[in-house]
Amino acid sequence: MLSSPPKESRSKAKSLLKNLQDKICNGLEALDGEKKFIEESWIRPEGGGGRSRVLKNGKVFEQAGVNFSEVYGSELPPSIISQRPEAKGHEWFATGTSLVLHPKNPYIPTVHLNYRYFEAGPVWWFGGGADLTPYYPYLTDVRHFHQTHRDACERIDINLHKVFKPWCDEYFYLKHRNESRGIGGIFYDYQDGSGSLYKGKNINGLANEISNKIGEIQFSWDDLYSLAKNCGDAFLPAYEPIVKKRLKNQYSQKERDFQLYRRGRYVEFNLVWDRGTIFGLQTNGRTESILMSLPPLARWEYGYVPSEHTREKYLTEIFTKPQDWHDDEDLEKFCIDKKIFD
Amino acid sequence: MLSSPPKESRSKAKSLLKNLQDKICNGLEALDGEKKFIEESWIRPEGGGGRSRVLKNGKVFEQAGVNFSEVYGSELPPSIISQRPEAKGHEWFATGTSLVLHPKNPYIPTVHLNYRYFEAGPVWWFGGGADLTPYYPYLTDVRHFHQTHRDACERIDINLHKVFKPWCDEYFYLKHRNESRGIGGIFYDYQDGSGSLYKGKNINGLANEISNKIGEIQFSWDDLYSLAKNCGDAFLPAYEPIVKKRLKNQYSQKERDFQLYRRGRYVEFNLVWDRGTIFGLQTNGRTESILMSLPPLARWEYGYVPSEHTREKYLTEIFTKPQDWHDDEDLEKFCIDKKIFD
Repeated sequence: MLSSPPKESRSKAKSLLKNLQDKICNGLEALDGEKKFIEESWIRPEGGGGRSRVLKNGKVFEQAGVNFSEVYGSELPPSIISQRPEAKGHEWFATGTSLVLHPKNPYIPTVHLNYRYFEAGPVWWFGGGADLTPYYPYLTDVRHFHQTHRDACERIDINLHKVFKPWCDEYFYLKHRNESRGIGGIFYDYQDGSGSLYKGKNINGLANEISNKIGEIQFSWDDLYSLAKNCGDAFLPAYEPIVKKRLKNQYSQKERDFQLYRRGRYVEFNLVWDRGTIFGLQTNGRTESILMSLPPLARWEYGYVPSEHTREKYLTEIFTKPQDWHDDEDLEKFCIDKKIFD
Repeated sequence: MLSSPPKESRSKAKSLLKNLQDKICNGLEALDGEKKFIEESWIRPEGGGGRSRVLKNGKVFEQAGVNFSEVYGSELPPSIISQRPEAKGHEWFATGTSLVLHPKNPYIPTVHLNYRYFEAGPVWWFGGGADLTPYYPYLTDVRHFHQTHRDACERIDINLHKVFKPWCDEYFYLKHRNESRGIGGIFYDYQDGSGSLYKGKNINGLANEISNKIGEIQFSWDDLYSLAKNCGDAFLPAYEPIVKKRLKNQYSQKERDFQLYRRGRYVEFNLVWDRGTIFGLQTNGRTESILMSLPPLARWEYGYVPSEHTREKYLTEIFTKPQDWHDDEDLEKFCIDKKIFD
């Protein structure tokens, strides 16, 4: 049985995510050290609005977009009804914070975060996650990003990360390329504290299997609120050290070209597979805010195949496939051997 | 009633479209004058195959991709069955030639062409078209492109172009931007010689209205074959003179940046709205050939708005909206006044 959300659930969720935007923007401005975010507030005629913030041509970030929005209405979009028919006929409320950062230096990974909360009548859920897309990865960076998010999840329940890591691998996947978008992170959706952790639809991957093994777990609204808070707060500690470590790496046009080429994959994922983006564009969302996730510059090259024994090849063969980053000893040896461990 | 296709219909359609690829590639190589196409033949495990040709970093073309394919199978893709349920249960055959050219000079428009033929049991149809996407347009170029295709259509029937021009405006439309992809051209689909010219689905725009006014027209298979031939053969005469005329235009980084920015729209259309691309990617098509349509380099810029009274503004306000290019006198006066007539 679904437990009712507490009083003030909407304003609590909204404050959480709005503060998250503020905290992250402050952190990123300090990290960039050169440019500041420019904010545009917007109002949604049907109800609600948002704050879109963008930092352009910084020292670290070629483009950083961080959006907060709070929207509501009386008629639910069909895509929500098809996912959760119980929500039908109720007025609804949704709030979320999302970001995509495109650093200039190809040694610094692109990163994405999104946390959101939804309510309609008796139905409510939390969703979100964060995932990292490196171009020239180091295994310690990958492990650090995962470990930080794992800790954040496990402070709520030891089982969460076991499902949210493979769910992320499954969601951020380019089927037409047989590639993950990057090295993953965490992803979860439709968390209402009842039943199984995995609530994906029409996919039967590892996340579902593990979730079935774990069985049903009950969480309260407050537990899931804390989960979103922990994970959101984990973002800067997960990402910042990687930026600081790799900022000094020298690069040439070759690495820049590969970064731009791989950014093409980011565009492909967001426009072909990302449910949020497609839904937004097809239902008259705020186009400029939605497409803030797209890179400032991207490249396509017909028939490009990286040469053997290059970092470009390792990215394509190893770091865009789901992996056990922590415990795979062969992977660790390989990375040490190829000088892409630390 | 649907008339049966003639004997040898498949090989006739295949030869037509294969020869079209050859003729166009020869013409484009001569036009570029510096680089040649490189061909990759590929085989489709389930039946058929194709020839993908690409010319990169030429004098005129930053990238030119021209694909021919002929594919067949016993089980129809669901998207075809939903469009034409009569085709169900029959083995099927499809052949097509398509191209997208991305010139280097921002004064030369990007252009797309696609002609195709489909058969399954008693069901058959021709489809296709060509459309132009300028960045710094001149009205005479726009008129020439349209007029050449109009002549090609009208040699078959005086009514065709009246429907195929608005159909093109309707199809190559970015709803999330309220913009046409470019200045249009012609587009038609599901032409089997029976009934009304417009056979779009779930859209009730101008093309449908005009088609209803015209009423039903019968065409033979041979008529529609000739239509595809006329239109395909019209491509080089429609495009080549524009290239030759604009190749000498000098440009700076400003025009280049705007071209790259507008190429972002091309990516958005192809990945979000183009049925062929989405269908191909989601059904395990040959990804590299499908995405050959994407530009070698593209740019996004949050919140970009062109300044008043600039060519960038005219592009956005006038040349990405459906227009009556021939007979609108105000438009002509405007273009003469702004020195973008000839």
